[in-house]
Amino acid sequence: MSRVKELGKKVLEGDIRAASRLIRNLEDQIPNTYIAMQEIFDKTGNSHVVGITGAPGAGKSTLTDELICAFRNKGDTVGVLAVDPTSPFTGGALLGDRIRMLRHSEDKGVFVRSMATRGAMGGISKAVGEGIHVMDVLKKDKIIVETVGVGQQEVEIINHAHTVIVVLVPGMGDEIQAIKAGLMEIADIFVINKADRDGAGKLYKETLNMVNMSKDANGGSKGWKIPVLLVENIMEPIKFAESVEALRDKIDEHYLYLIDNNLLSERMRRKTTAELNEALWGKIMQPILNNLESSGEMEQMVDMLLMKESNPYSLATEVADKHMK
Amino acid sequence: MSRVKELGKKVLEGDIRAASRLIRNLEDQIPNTYIAMQEIFDKTGNSHVVGITGAPGAGKSTLTDELICAFRNKGDTVGVLAVDPTSPFTGGALLGDRIRMLRHSEDKGVFVRSMATRGAMGGISKAVGEGIHVMDVLKKDKIIVETVGVGQQEVEIINHAHTVIVVLVPGMGDEIQAIKAGLMEIADIFVINKADRDGAGKLYKETLNMVNMSKDANGGSKGWKIPVLLVENIMEPIKFAESVEALRDKIDEHYLYLIDNNLLSERMRRKTTAELNEALWGKIMQPILNNLESSGEMEQMVDMLLMKESNPYSLATEVADKHMK
Repeated sequence: MSRVKELGKKVLEGDIRAASRLIRNLEDQIPNTYIAMQEIFDKTGNSHVVGITGAPGAGKSTLTDELICAFRNKGDTVGVLAVDPTSPFTGGALLGDRIRMLRHSEDKGVFVRSMATRGAMGGISKAVGEGIHVMDVLKKDKIIVETVGVGQQEVEIINHAHTVIVVLVPGMGDEIQAIKAGLMEIADIFVINKADRDGAGKLYKETLNMVNMSKDANGGSKGWKIPVLLVENIMEPIKFAESVEALRDKIDEHYLYLIDNNLLSERMRRKTTAELNEALWGKIMQPILNNLESSGEMEQMVDMLLMKESNPYSLATEVADKHMK
Repeated sequence: MSRVKELGKKVLEGDIRAASRLIRNLEDQIPNTYIAMQEIFDKTGNSHVVGITGAPGAGKSTLTDELICAFRNKGDTVGVLAVDPTSPFTGGALLGDRIRMLRHSEDKGVFVRSMATRGAMGGISKAVGEGIHVMDVLKKDKIIVETVGVGQQEVEIINHAHTVIVVLVPGMGDEIQAIKAGLMEIADIFVINKADRDGAGKLYKETLNMVNMSKDANGGSKGWKIPVLLVENIMEPIKFAESVEALRDKIDEHYLYLIDNNLLSERMRRKTTAELNEALWGKIMQPILNNLESSGEMEQMVDMLLMKESNPYSLATEVADKHMK
């Protein structure tokens, strides 16, 4: 058996070390990693995937950390994939911010991994989708995917989740409102974090209004009334824990709602479509790019373009003609 | 001559209506748009491309708006591409925020376009790179590309710029600091916006320290000392205009620095590499995806995956075998 296939088998047996290595290989976009993923794919689909997104500074890491506790308290096992899009440059700038999650490292029911992708375009969402599968076959009841940032890339990542939590905080200006509107259509639960801050009440009302309006606009959201939860200040640990427990219960409620109303398949379809797109990229685009890089052709073509000896469209056509039937 | 080719010719003649249509076609990822782009490519490369990025809520749109005035005051023509990554969902949520830029619409020296990409993975950065070319052949001296968000997608977009401005604001917490560190390596100029807010002095000092440290770490940044500019509150229009004029002068200074030190070619290389990557995606990946979508095969494959009748890697291999030599 190939070593990569064996790696997949080991992950299926619950080998944490193998799982960590597999996730690292996904992150590094090692080409033959798909062989391990092939091994595990048909055992996936049992975890509840919870996406947490929202603007930077919204306190998502702290919330995730407390959510781990809340899920553990009711006996659920938890996987966390913390996605760091900034580290093409920093090699993991957010580590410090997430270091507190390490307090769970003694707990065998918790598996936390940070994921950054240094590779080409589109790679991070692919790696996250596959990282979720790894945590899934490790039999984690809940897999929390936390993203930083609010760009399109993050929206792609969040496609992998069944339940999407959008975290808002008071006092972040107009642009945030716009993003909030942009996230409206993917949010299943809104959290107003740092709810002790000035403006929390206003934000709460605005968000509720938005939820209600959008419900009318869409002709009702099939029975799920998107809740807006207030989460109290972390400076008051008891209040904080209590409001995160309320959030945990809402998350579970949403999962049951999806199952009871036969909507899980719809989410699974969104998730699976994203995965297929990413696998296609990995099988078609990625090998061509790797080949152009390693052969030096990429650099030669860039030289030609800089001298205006050709244009990107003609060069791309040549490459396409060479590689495609 | 094909109509698309003609569209390219018209843009070369300075036809604003044709340029608007071309940008819309890029945005909509109309397949044969590359024919128009082929037409204009070898006339590009004369504009100074300025990227403005930073966390949401940092006031980038207001800054861009005032920068337009500052550049116009010294006689430069200006193109603006405002990139809206949220609108796969909202169809242009940020329009309101950018509406004030419309006050320039009577001025023929200014060309402002919003750009959102509803298409597949990677599409937005490609469309922006090409949108820049359109503004370039319209002979705009300065092209400002403003992004929302701070994800990896935005970093890709910013690859198209010669001069990168990172906008920070006081009081946005730890996560922002991390992102700031992530943006460190692409920033040519830092702006501390809303500098009348609490914490501006602290942020200013931190940013200066970071700039100095990174300079030491990299063995000096080839003579360009990354400046940290304070921009005063928009509530005091005169102060605001003055500090934006200082920013404008820094931007021009950076461009001269790139030219004088033969570094423009390095930036052009980064920009051109990004474009080539995106053109390859457009010629290879995009047609395959479009074909799978329109033939219904994509949906069939997703069905198979949902039933666990196959896995994404095997299906992707089949597609690759079918399309690739």
